Amino acid sequence: MTDDVRNIRTALDAVAHHWQPHRLTSVNDYDVKVAKLHGEFVWHSHPDTDELFLVVEGTLTIQLRDRDVVLGPSDVFVVPRGVEHCPRADDEVSIVLVEPRGTVNTGDAGGDRTEPLRELP
Amino acid sequence: MTDDVRNIRTALDAVAHHWQPHRLTSVNDYDVKVAKLHGEFVWHSHPDTDELFLVVEGTLTIQLRDRDVVLGPSDVFVVPRGVEHCPRADDEVSIVLVEPRGTVNTGDAGGDRTEPLRELP
Repeated sequence: MTDDVRNIRTALDAVAHHWQPHRLTSVNDYDVKVAKLHGEFVWHSHPDTDELFLVVEGTLTIQLRDRDVVLGPSDVFVVPRGVEHCPRADDEVSIVLVEPRGTVNTGDAGGDRTEPLRELP
Repeated sequence: MTDDVRNIRTALDAVAHHWQPHRLTSVNDYDVKVAKLHGEFVWHSHPDTDELFLVVEGTLTIQLRDRDVVLGPSDVFVVPRGVEHCPRADDEVSIVLVEPRGTVNTGDAGGDRTEPLRELP
C-alpha cells in the first residue's frame, strides 16, 4: 500500500525506460504497476496467476498463440494463468498491470528481459 | 476472469444507477468493478481488506476520520483495511474499484445501502 494519492499519468511521466514496471500502489498482496512498452516482448506465461493489462495511452497487441488481442485506451484484458502471451507495441504504449506481489515480468521464460519491480521516484 | 476485452468507459456508460458496483473483470480471486457515485455514502470499514479507488471521471472525496482525500481523474488511492471511510461525490463521479471477491460495498456497516455485485449487461 502507498498511503497517499497516486496519479497514473504523473507516475507514467516519471518512467524513463521501456519494459520496466514501477509500483504505483498495492492492495493487500497485489501490486498495481505502471509501465511503458515499445517493441516486442518475449513469449511467456504465468503458471500461477492471471495478469491484468489496462491501456492508458497507445495501442497494445497481446499476442496469444491462437489470436491477437488489440487494446486501446481504457481497454482492460486479463491473460489467464498459464496462457502463453507476448505483448507487442508498434508505437509506445502506457499501461497499468495488476497481479500478485512477486509476479515476474517474464514469467516462466526468464532471460535477459527480466526486470525487478521498481519504486517510482 | 472475463475472456474478452472490456472497455472501462463503455462499461460505465452501461451503468444506470449510482452506488451499484458492476464487475468489469476479475484477476484470480480479485474483482475489478466499475461504479458511478453521486451524493454521500455511509461510514464503514473493511476489516479484512484494503480497497483501491481509481477515479475515471469527476471528483471523489474519500472522507477519513482525520482528513479528506480528494481524487480527480487518473488518481488512485488505497483505503487500508480497517480504516473507516465515507466516499462523497458532490457531482457524479465514475470510478474503478479493486478488491477481493466477496467484498461488500458497505463493509462492516451493512444496512440499506448494501448492494450486490452486478454483472454488466
